[in-house]
Amino acid sequence: MKYKTPISHNTILRLPRYLHLLEEMQGRGQERTSSTEMAIALGMTPSQVRQDLAAFGNYGAQGYGYNIPVLLQEVKKILGLHIRHTIAVVGTGCIGRAMLEHLDYESYNYKVLAAFDVREDVIGTEINGVPVYDAAGMEAWFADHDVDICILAVPAEKARSVAKQLSRYGMPAIWNFTNVDLTQKDMHCVVQNVDFRNSLFTLTYYLENKT
Amino acid sequence: MKYKTPISHNTILRLPRYLHLLEEMQGRGQERTSSTEMAIALGMTPSQVRQDLAAFGNYGAQGYGYNIPVLLQEVKKILGLHIRHTIAVVGTGCIGRAMLEHLDYESYNYKVLAAFDVREDVIGTEINGVPVYDAAGMEAWFADHDVDICILAVPAEKARSVAKQLSRYGMPAIWNFTNVDLTQKDMHCVVQNVDFRNSLFTLTYYLENKT
Repeated sequence: MKYKTPISHNTILRLPRYLHLLEEMQGRGQERTSSTEMAIALGMTPSQVRQDLAAFGNYGAQGYGYNIPVLLQEVKKILGLHIRHTIAVVGTGCIGRAMLEHLDYESYNYKVLAAFDVREDVIGTEINGVPVYDAAGMEAWFADHDVDICILAVPAEKARSVAKQLSRYGMPAIWNFTNVDLTQKDMHCVVQNVDFRNSLFTLTYYLENKT
Repeated sequence: MKYKTPISHNTILRLPRYLHLLEEMQGRGQERTSSTEMAIALGMTPSQVRQDLAAFGNYGAQGYGYNIPVLLQEVKKILGLHIRHTIAVVGTGCIGRAMLEHLDYESYNYKVLAAFDVREDVIGTEINGVPVYDAAGMEAWFADHDVDICILAVPAEKARSVAKQLSRYGMPAIWNFTNVDLTQKDMHCVVQNVDFRNSLFTLTYYLENKT
């Protein structure tokens, strides 16, 4: 989906929070909401909520607010969750395993096809129903399967070489948990870096700079 | 540490990336760098780097650039990493366990004191050298120990009640992995929410909106 004006990265980062809130509201049987109610729940201002949602189209009506099921579908569509996405996991150490066990991918239209590792003791096993294959067979496997997103969870020292390998296979997107900053210009694919240390450091900053 | 002008959240989010880059440069024996070199490595503009670092003080010199060990120490100090912080982990399912195993806390002046769980089969064990205690004894334990940061990794349905419990114990900061949005106004403490789904959704958005 393409929009007339470029949408800011910060707006994109807030969309998942709107999604979870709308799901929660729908879960308790609520049918409509307002920018004020959403803003209070999310610790934002109503005008910020209105501005974010207006960037994608005209979903609210003055005096009525937002219809929850309609807005929820729209937010999902904006994020691309109406499209089925396939996932493969490379590296099943503590983080790869946790990502296989922790998230309910099916609820959001993702399908985890396979995981890969080099360790003999995990090859041939299943983690949360997902088969773990020998990483030696990755190239052939990727040639035969359409994978949209690769979860990269190999040891840090292997991060760049495995990422380049995946890039060569034509992987469209890498969700990178290796703590190595893989910038997109290196990679020719979409990269989302998740470095847990950064989140901890940000928390520490706010802890030490509380007002 | 307090600064004259408020520092933007986006600047704070970029500081850990500067930190890792400076560590990498120091690791290869480099002694000075420039905003241009840093910008290229991080996919930013030199003026953005200069602006970010100038917010905290005058660390660069025209024609010389930045002294890496000095700047590295300053970035650590800004983030509060020069202060020793203690951590406790509540919940040792897949995510709690992964967070105990994955990060090298000692390198950044953190000390993980203990973990808590309700499951009989993990109580009394150690994960990566950290003892797992019975969650029933949390109140007494927290009364006896100074903990700065709690890693919250309990099942989603228990997130709010355990967070409120920790807040009652006077916990200064919660690093929240429960996928439940705990806003600070509820909590009387600093909260950093880590919801992996949000990162995946953002990645999906950029995958579907590639230019």
